[in-house]
Amino acid sequence: MTGPRVAGVGMTPFGKHESRTARDLFAAAAQEAIADAGVEHAAVEEVRFGNFMGEFAEGQGHMGPLAAEAAGVHAPSTRIESACASSGAAVRQGVMLVQSGQADVVLVGGAERMTNLSTADATEALAAAADAVWEVRPGMTFPGAYALMTQAYFAQYGGTSEDLAHIAVKNHANAVENDLAQFQRAIDVEDALEAPTVCSPFGLYDCSPISDGASAAVLVSEEYAAEHDLDAPVAITGSGQGTDSLALQARVSLTQTTATERAAAAAYEEAGIGPRDVDVAEVHDCFTHAEVLALEGLGFYDPGTAIEAAREGETTADGDLPVNLSGGLKAKGHPVGATGSAQISELTKLLEGRHVNSDAVSDSPGTVGLTHNAGGTVASAVVHVLEVVA
Amino acid sequence: MTGPRVAGVGMTPFGKHESRTARDLFAAAAQEAIADAGVEHAAVEEVRFGNFMGEFAEGQGHMGPLAAEAAGVHAPSTRIESACASSGAAVRQGVMLVQSGQADVVLVGGAERMTNLSTADATEALAAAADAVWEVRPGMTFPGAYALMTQAYFAQYGGTSEDLAHIAVKNHANAVENDLAQFQRAIDVEDALEAPTVCSPFGLYDCSPISDGASAAVLVSEEYAAEHDLDAPVAITGSGQGTDSLALQARVSLTQTTATERAAAAAYEEAGIGPRDVDVAEVHDCFTHAEVLALEGLGFYDPGTAIEAAREGETTADGDLPVNLSGGLKAKGHPVGATGSAQISELTKLLEGRHVNSDAVSDSPGTVGLTHNAGGTVASAVVHVLEVVA
Repeated sequence: MTGPRVAGVGMTPFGKHESRTARDLFAAAAQEAIADAGVEHAAVEEVRFGNFMGEFAEGQGHMGPLAAEAAGVHAPSTRIESACASSGAAVRQGVMLVQSGQADVVLVGGAERMTNLSTADATEALAAAADAVWEVRPGMTFPGAYALMTQAYFAQYGGTSEDLAHIAVKNHANAVENDLAQFQRAIDVEDALEAPTVCSPFGLYDCSPISDGASAAVLVSEEYAAEHDLDAPVAITGSGQGTDSLALQARVSLTQTTATERAAAAAYEEAGIGPRDVDVAEVHDCFTHAEVLALEGLGFYDPGTAIEAAREGETTADGDLPVNLSGGLKAKGHPVGATGSAQISELTKLLEGRHVNSDAVSDSPGTVGLTHNAGGTVASAVVHVLEVVA
Repeated sequence: MTGPRVAGVGMTPFGKHESRTARDLFAAAAQEAIADAGVEHAAVEEVRFGNFMGEFAEGQGHMGPLAAEAAGVHAPSTRIESACASSGAAVRQGVMLVQSGQADVVLVGGAERMTNLSTADATEALAAAADAVWEVRPGMTFPGAYALMTQAYFAQYGGTSEDLAHIAVKNHANAVENDLAQFQRAIDVEDALEAPTVCSPFGLYDCSPISDGASAAVLVSEEYAAEHDLDAPVAITGSGQGTDSLALQARVSLTQTTATERAAAAAYEEAGIGPRDVDVAEVHDCFTHAEVLALEGLGFYDPGTAIEAAREGETTADGDLPVNLSGGLKAKGHPVGATGSAQISELTKLLEGRHVNSDAVSDSPGTVGLTHNAGGTVASAVVHVLEVVA
């Protein structure tokens, strides 16, 4: 048993999709994933769909049925909402369905429409991921919350805006050739440092953009893949989720992400690996500093050291541990409910040698990739371990 | 193997909870369920929480972490949203986790705050369960949609407002002694017929109310119950979910609920029973006619005949098949995200002989109960079969 196989993936370009609804976007991603998997629509037994702000953007809840309709399948379909980790959590529900033998073929994914909202309305919608009583009412926004966590980190460990700029530069560089990315252009450290301030220490290039987009994956059991002779060399060998207090004030620390640590511990245990075994990772860089927190929470770096690793280039495409080869949330874009399953889509292609940045990754059996998707100020975290098994 | 046991249940009174947030309400229900189960908080391995309109009512999404915090547990916690079937779907995710051996102890439930919204705002929030593009934009509301389905039924099979009134009278009668119910008072057919029209053929008493409330249940594996000597005689022996097109226009029929049929077929198959084996049911009567559609979709009555059964009193407390002994959504109240798990809570108490209306039900082994929770105009349906096994 190696775990559920990623039989097929699909993803719309991330960016501005004038006048396309979330369901339209998901239809494109889901049809691509089903075709890529080579399974019949009728074979899909369950659908788990991530969406965060449909109520705000389109007045639309209850998107489970819409997702199934968009995919052209008649299976039970449930919307999973875990803020920006919505589709990571949807993938996890799908993984558990296949792992447990309750389904052989599951469609997972997510979609988000955001650019039809004004910046103020999008900021308000995103704030629903924080604690409405203890954080949002006093005026907290997400750039503010992450900036607070960053300032605490700088105070505890040191670090500068210039250090963070290296992360933005790296992720933009990774996106240059990725046709699905929102920003296919390189920036340099000066661009980042000279950009308008959003919320100190964050400038514009420290922040992921407002995006529209959808992503999907078809997960199948190992037995199903074998019986139907599917070309599905990547298995999900570990899946973990962690939950922390929603409000920052209730956390033990502002520089440590307990939910990520819990999710990683569970995923590593299931996969039978440790952080040193990971060859490539897609992590949740909604802000540059979020990538620092992720790399430490995942155990790749000791607390307080990942910011230096960024400065030293250890996580670039030709570094020891390539991180966010897709361009990350920063440059690929961040249609929030689609981000977690987009990580699965991009990482699967990277591991299968069919991504524009696959040169940075081996597609040989034993190569290990990891995805990390976070919700809110990491009150929710979902980690998946993917491995080339054939 | 008999299936996951319902080790404990909890529920706030349904009604108007001035100034209590959804998280406050869930804290009460969850703590009651955990105490009722007799398990340690630390034993809870997963949380699945249903909420529908937190974004509209409290500007609050991402309620998974809030639900875990309210319950005092640190397990992975995910919000499930499936409109008015949100917590039915959350229960199903929990059942699957236990069935599959992925968890021995799961907390499931839901909460909704609604009465802080104006009637217009609540109507708009509820409309997010329908198709925003094809139904809501042209002006459809939920009373309108269900009234349309009722008029189609009357045209196809016959039926009158007076027939429907018998359902409201029955459900109000069942709630009279239920301290958790929103309306603990009897009405008669004349009251129903003389009430103001909401949307023809519906008068005020054909419609479930706007409510606040929360409900929860602790599900454990059979092995865990035995090892820890838990008093948990009720097992969930079948669980099914069905999904249909979100918009009414895409349905095959307005008088038939395919999602309910699919959910019931799956639940019956898993439980190894048929509709004739069910002794007592809690069904989704968001409108009186919804109970008619449910009873037919569940196979208790042939198409077009459940309305006559209502008139004949076959589903009253002393009828052949008592339906909605709790008072149903109509009289118990309908805090939408809490309704599905409230059905589990009420039915478990009924089957365990500790509900005020338990006299109408045997608590002997072999007694079978059923819950039916629907979302939107039954685009989503979740059915559970509960059985007294010890």
